[in-house]
Amino acid sequence: MARTVITISREFGSGGRSIAKAVAEALNIPYYDKELIKQVAEKTDLSPEYVENTGEHAPGKSVFSFLPNLGMPQNFFKGISTEDFLWSMQRNVILDLAEKGSCVIVGRSADYILKDNPDALHVFIHAATAFKADRIVRLYGESKKKPEERLADKDGKRRAHYKHFTGRAWGQSQNYHLSLDSSKIGLEKCVSIIVDLVGMERKNE
Amino acid sequence: MARTVITISREFGSGGRSIAKAVAEALNIPYYDKELIKQVAEKTDLSPEYVENTGEHAPGKSVFSFLPNLGMPQNFFKGISTEDFLWSMQRNVILDLAEKGSCVIVGRSADYILKDNPDALHVFIHAATAFKADRIVRLYGESKKKPEERLADKDGKRRAHYKHFTGRAWGQSQNYHLSLDSSKIGLEKCVSIIVDLVGMERKNE
Repeated sequence: MARTVITISREFGSGGRSIAKAVAEALNIPYYDKELIKQVAEKTDLSPEYVENTGEHAPGKSVFSFLPNLGMPQNFFKGISTEDFLWSMQRNVILDLAEKGSCVIVGRSADYILKDNPDALHVFIHAATAFKADRIVRLYGESKKKPEERLADKDGKRRAHYKHFTGRAWGQSQNYHLSLDSSKIGLEKCVSIIVDLVGMERKNE
Repeated sequence: MARTVITISREFGSGGRSIAKAVAEALNIPYYDKELIKQVAEKTDLSPEYVENTGEHAPGKSVFSFLPNLGMPQNFFKGISTEDFLWSMQRNVILDLAEKGSCVIVGRSADYILKDNPDALHVFIHAATAFKADRIVRLYGESKKKPEERLADKDGKRRAHYKHFTGRAWGQSQNYHLSLDSSKIGLEKCVSIIVDLVGMERKNE
């Protein structure tokens, strides 16, 4: 069986994670999300919570960034930041997982990290705001912030993190082989399009 | 039969136009590309060549833009430019076509013009550079410019035109329901995914 590594990037609330799980089940291949976070946490001695929250969010500014530029190289005072260290370890874990065999990897800029992997299929899942807002309230409950703000906040952080580490625009269709609007197409149909494409790739080999 | 208006935006050389034609044939609905240009040309008294080239390309600068700002409103010297007039007429033709019944419309920012049309399915077709370069040389022949330059030139103009008139980023996946890499997925499979989705939408109605 030819190896297929499916990366699924997703907007918060779009159902991308559910689609990823269903694809992995249908193809009977491993699904890495929390498991990936666990592996990175073990390798870095960082807490799983920190890995989960920081591994897809924009790095904060070093306190030294507020000092005037004294002609020193930008990282002179900084050394390697925890965020850069985390990025590097996360990258290694993802490269290792893709080496091991077919799998589905959710988020974590895996589309960029595996961009030159010929066995990879890169997918982006997005959805209309009303659909996502409704979905996060049903799944994660109400909070003090409006659902629209929660969406903008979470995806804003993902966008900034992706831009910072990859230099690319998050959600730009050219970064993925397939981008799907789950609110228009439906979650089940998204799953079947992806499963069907992987099946076709295998048949052609 | 429920109305379905499929807009297909595409990178130069990606095969988007061939995909659009094949989708229209499979669904037995009209396909608007040159026909749309002809209609716009008739309504505007502009030449079809001008409509074809300017209708998706960035507007040039008015000569007055080189004058110092004398505190006049930006359009004081300009009136409505030919490009703005063309945009407005092209927009009307597209809205009319979508009213008439099911169809496939290629390019011309139709995804933006019909963004609030509940019957529309918006598709973006892109492809790897090597695939597109090879394809344009086979289809349109060699030229003095390298194929990669021809691609960058044409799509750069489309991107600037789209940004100018819509304020949105061309190729940003959230602007489309479906974005496909035709070099990875194959033209035939792109056609069948689109046809299948439209069939599903109709069945659900």
